[in-house]
Amino acid sequence: MSYTVHGTSTSGNCHKVRMALDILRLPCEWREVDILQGETRTPEFLAMNPNGKVPVLAIDGTTFLAESNAILWFLAEGTPLVPSDRLARAQVLQWLFFEQYSHEPAIAVARFIRCFLKKPDDPRLPELARRGDRALAVMERHLSDRSYFAGDTLTIADLALFAYTHKAADGGFVLENYPAVSAWLARCRGAPGVTEMPTP
Amino acid sequence: MSYTVHGTSTSGNCHKVRMALDILRLPCEWREVDILQGETRTPEFLAMNPNGKVPVLAIDGTTFLAESNAILWFLAEGTPLVPSDRLARAQVLQWLFFEQYSHEPAIAVARFIRCFLKKPDDPRLPELARRGDRALAVMERHLSDRSYFAGDTLTIADLALFAYTHKAADGGFVLENYPAVSAWLARCRGAPGVTEMPTP
Repeated sequence: MSYTVHGTSTSGNCHKVRMALDILRLPCEWREVDILQGETRTPEFLAMNPNGKVPVLAIDGTTFLAESNAILWFLAEGTPLVPSDRLARAQVLQWLFFEQYSHEPAIAVARFIRCFLKKPDDPRLPELARRGDRALAVMERHLSDRSYFAGDTLTIADLALFAYTHKAADGGFVLENYPAVSAWLARCRGAPGVTEMPTP
Repeated sequence: MSYTVHGTSTSGNCHKVRMALDILRLPCEWREVDILQGETRTPEFLAMNPNGKVPVLAIDGTTFLAESNAILWFLAEGTPLVPSDRLARAQVLQWLFFEQYSHEPAIAVARFIRCFLKKPDDPRLPELARRGDRALAVMERHLSDRSYFAGDTLTIADLALFAYTHKAADGGFVLENYPAVSAWLARCRGAPGVTEMPTP
């Protein structure tokens, strides 16, 4: 199978896909998409993903898969990045859904408002800060007695949560307040293929 | 394995789990949780799910799985509700993540504000209406030339999206504007185990 990612290098949702491709040594063409220039709203892009969001994985140029965490699962199922045990697989999914529902909409959006839109006085920021700190507190509690989110080794749950957490300071969050999260971030950074996301 | 669901019968995220249990004929104890009375914020509940959300699936009384769509996957993997083909599985996940990111935070939250909080003048409603209609339009486009969300038969992607879509009118949405979505809802209702969610 040949892969093309239509993605934005400074987006955490896209960066997690890039890390999975790198860790799994899967060859892939990367086509850069400029969200701020409306490139996810063109008819060509909407034909790939009617929801108008990056990343999109094109498979053999004819099949298109959207939603970053679904792409992670597709690429990594059958590798050590997705456990084979049924319960452990569901626990990976639990954290992938946590990331998309409780983490990304606060921490990534706060970063987007501050770093892309450059609006540090945006009225949405206090509520996003409150929700983002709540998500970080949930992660802190979970990581207080374990090394990775699901099982004893790095999985796609870690890659998904690493993507925006390691840049949470961009959204105004203070990672020093979360020692277990900070230790986990250092652990992730030690894994081959885990890389820093480019700054906007 | 013995299952207990800690859930709220009028919550779509919980109703989808109930439908999966019914379709798969899995025996399960249901413990009703009253969100409005703060029952997801007690130390006992947070010990099961530090994120303080229903549903939680207790497995043999000792292991706790959160996030409705992760619970669906756990219950249904290996049954006809989850395809065996790798791409089809990822497409199921794509729609599960769409549901949690682009659909539920608009359509379920609008319903919650109108039906549970009883605040039809809440200032958040216009933006939620805009986002919910966008999600319904994405579904309408996808269903224009197919019967179910992933593959030719009912999967957990359909159960997840059915949960809040069939009650979207509670949130102020006009389903008659979406004929393909309405036809799919009728198709889902014809499947054994697919049931109406109780009204608050």
